[in-house]
Amino acid sequence: MKQVEICFSPELIHLHELQGKIVVVVDIFRATSTMIAALAHGISEIKTCADLEECRAMASQGYLIAGERNGIKADGFQLGNSPLAYLDGEYHSQKLAMTTTNGTLAISKSTGAEEILIGAFPNLQATVNYIQSKDKDVLIHCSGWKGKFNLEDSLYGGALVKALEATHEAEDDGAIAMKSLYEKEGHDLKRFLSQASHAKRLQNHNIDSDINFCLTLDLFSLVGKVEDGILTGIRQ
Amino acid sequence: MKQVEICFSPELIHLHELQGKIVVVVDIFRATSTMIAALAHGISEIKTCADLEECRAMASQGYLIAGERNGIKADGFQLGNSPLAYLDGEYHSQKLAMTTTNGTLAISKSTGAEEILIGAFPNLQATVNYIQSKDKDVLIHCSGWKGKFNLEDSLYGGALVKALEATHEAEDDGAIAMKSLYEKEGHDLKRFLSQASHAKRLQNHNIDSDINFCLTLDLFSLVGKVEDGILTGIRQ
Repeated sequence: MKQVEICFSPELIHLHELQGKIVVVVDIFRATSTMIAALAHGISEIKTCADLEECRAMASQGYLIAGERNGIKADGFQLGNSPLAYLDGEYHSQKLAMTTTNGTLAISKSTGAEEILIGAFPNLQATVNYIQSKDKDVLIHCSGWKGKFNLEDSLYGGALVKALEATHEAEDDGAIAMKSLYEKEGHDLKRFLSQASHAKRLQNHNIDSDINFCLTLDLFSLVGKVEDGILTGIRQ
Repeated sequence: MKQVEICFSPELIHLHELQGKIVVVVDIFRATSTMIAALAHGISEIKTCADLEECRAMASQGYLIAGERNGIKADGFQLGNSPLAYLDGEYHSQKLAMTTTNGTLAISKSTGAEEILIGAFPNLQATVNYIQSKDKDVLIHCSGWKGKFNLEDSLYGGALVKALEATHEAEDDGAIAMKSLYEKEGHDLKRFLSQASHAKRLQNHNIDSDINFCLTLDLFSLVGKVEDGILTGIRQ
């Protein structure tokens, strides 16, 4: 058996060994869900940027620019952080530069891993299949909310630990806890997450349809993989 | 309603506001369980020390000294970190100085709170009663294991959030998650925790009877409270 562990926040990632592992970065509401939606609908590549300025500057190189802070589209950006913006294929074949409150930090802090994948519920099974075609330990890196544990990223972690149980054992207490919690609450994620702090923040922005999308399993047979700072989709 | 939140590790405590709150520090295996056992059996006060040297020096001031690192009694100390050592009352009326791998750090990093309590399963209801006699928000500060989330401290957090639900609502995602997990797994903590990383470490030290003690609810009607660096027991 290989092993799977969960890091609940980029603030704790220094306590984990990255080398040799597949790191799955997750920011369910909404960065990584949006990235998977964009790639599944024809965006050719995504450059993740650490800050708004770096992202804005990519426009001059022919990138669409998507910028979000605290759940709201940042000034001067074409796109915010809604996965629904990509679903009609309007941006097919374009390149996207993106920066978000939490998710892009977790990606940059995953440097040093053997492989970096982008996780979301809409491509959970595709990610499981990809991981199970390799023979590597897995670290699930939750983006959290401004350094804190958050429920939606951690429950995705539990779902992934559960889905990998034939090949990977839960290596740390975070993985044990979230697998058990997903077993209890996974049948109605939306109800359970409606209590969560971030879901409440999102409700304030009237994005219930975004939330529904982000919690839907297995819409896409596509894996998101970061190499040299560029995220692309691998069709299964 | 007042609010209750959970911090999973001293490495994340800087993300939480302490001021005005009752902070409950927890290190189930075994520091805070041992402190409560000692106070319940007549130890008059406990000084928590940041390191082994500071603790060792307290012997010259008439303190019993208890020192543990990585689950094992440190060289030159009279006591390690087993709660069972206190149960026959041998040390009644003595003062104790104590240092442990994780628990004493969490206590020192709780400075700034309105009140600092020491939490353990053997005095859970006493702690609930004390908190409910006040009108304060609560922060549960888990000691974790070398900075990481651990299962036993977090589940104590879930048990406390659950027990406080008449007066305190879960304020953050950690509290929501652990309350739900305790509802699922709380009926057989020992079985569930037997998977946990720290329980495995403790099994290596042959302290199954320590684990049983640490997971037993409501043996003592006593609250542990830290003031000016000194922990004493308040009988209910």
